[in-house]
Amino acid sequence: MRQGVVAETGLIAHGRGEAFDYLLGEKTTLEGERAEEVAVALLLEASRPVVTINGNAAALAARDLCALADLVGAKVEVNLFHRSEERIAKVIAYVESQCGHAVLGREQDFTLEGIASDRARCCSQGIAAADVVLIPLEDGDRAEALRKAGKKVIAIDLNPLSRTTLAADIAIVDELTRAARNMVALAEVMVDHPPQERARMVAMFNNQRNLGAVMERMSNDLHGKAHGH
Amino acid sequence: MRQGVVAETGLIAHGRGEAFDYLLGEKTTLEGERAEEVAVALLLEASRPVVTINGNAAALAARDLCALADLVGAKVEVNLFHRSEERIAKVIAYVESQCGHAVLGREQDFTLEGIASDRARCCSQGIAAADVVLIPLEDGDRAEALRKAGKKVIAIDLNPLSRTTLAADIAIVDELTRAARNMVALAEVMVDHPPQERARMVAMFNNQRNLGAVMERMSNDLHGKAHGH
Repeated sequence: MRQGVVAETGLIAHGRGEAFDYLLGEKTTLEGERAEEVAVALLLEASRPVVTINGNAAALAARDLCALADLVGAKVEVNLFHRSEERIAKVIAYVESQCGHAVLGREQDFTLEGIASDRARCCSQGIAAADVVLIPLEDGDRAEALRKAGKKVIAIDLNPLSRTTLAADIAIVDELTRAARNMVALAEVMVDHPPQERARMVAMFNNQRNLGAVMERMSNDLHGKAHGH
Repeated sequence: MRQGVVAETGLIAHGRGEAFDYLLGEKTTLEGERAEEVAVALLLEASRPVVTINGNAAALAARDLCALADLVGAKVEVNLFHRSEERIAKVIAYVESQCGHAVLGREQDFTLEGIASDRARCCSQGIAAADVVLIPLEDGDRAEALRKAGKKVIAIDLNPLSRTTLAADIAIVDELTRAARNMVALAEVMVDHPPQERARMVAMFNNQRNLGAVMERMSNDLHGKAHGH
């Protein structure tokens, strides 16, 4: 935050995530692992995948998100919720220092439909042209707008009930640094799998059922603690 | 935060609270209401009650916490987790502007046992001498140290599993602005109740059972959402 990468309200959002992670036992669940695997398969199957990075995602996992993007052949686009010229320059400089190459996001020459104008803007060469978009820690409005724009949306969000999670085709309910690290490891292996195997994995995944299982897990855990075991 | 009342990490802590409040449906539960009522009874029964206020509590509810303290005859002590001379001055000035009278916290001439030194300090005329202490949004170490020092501890904390909550004699799992407002209204009425009625209310309260019921409520709510109703 002091370097201008994370916004002040980004700290509050981070705290919300901490609470949900606490309810998950601060570890990747089986459901999280499953969603991460299917998400990597979908990214590898995509024609024009994009990984978006905002301030919190940059601060937590810029390096792994870039490594993942490189492995699956995705572009990286920095896309801020609280955008100013100064902040976008700082976040992009930070992300590029972690990635080792240029990323998109300086110029926003395209407008998504269905959301307030300054959150609707993105790059025509990036998000606007994408078929699959990975959105770590994204706002619900933007997640819904991306979905309406016909993209396949992969969310990483610790709140299993957030609008972002509910709008996603694949919802990864896991903490971002763990999720990004897992996905890099998965991508390194899965890049050599036969495409039909990845396609089958994507086709068989039931996002609603997986999400229900995460909520059930949190619920059971609280139930157990309510009864002191 | 920009005025120096809330610390940067206070924003993250606030976010954690928001997530738990979300699981409570952002309203005071029956269990919260019950704990608030018993807490007010205990404060009215106390000989030397103290209401502590830190940065987050000041920013959210200084006025109501002071009104509550005045109604139950408690002293107010400002007690920061991240203490510096500059910050304590700012927070006390802010709290006094809301209270309309002086509060304790400038001089810390007493040290509680069992915690790291700068969190152990407090006022000999305030917390150190108190029999009952209300600690809104307090750190777990301090809550446990107060309990060990033989005080009756009333916590206000949205996390039903936090060390603060678990250390308390009366744990109020509710959002602070709602809890403080409710407690002011309760104190206005209960100040005229017969003392034996308040004492009975305190004696009959089972904190563990009440806390178990809140967790059960959160668990059931998540369970319902997992199944889409």
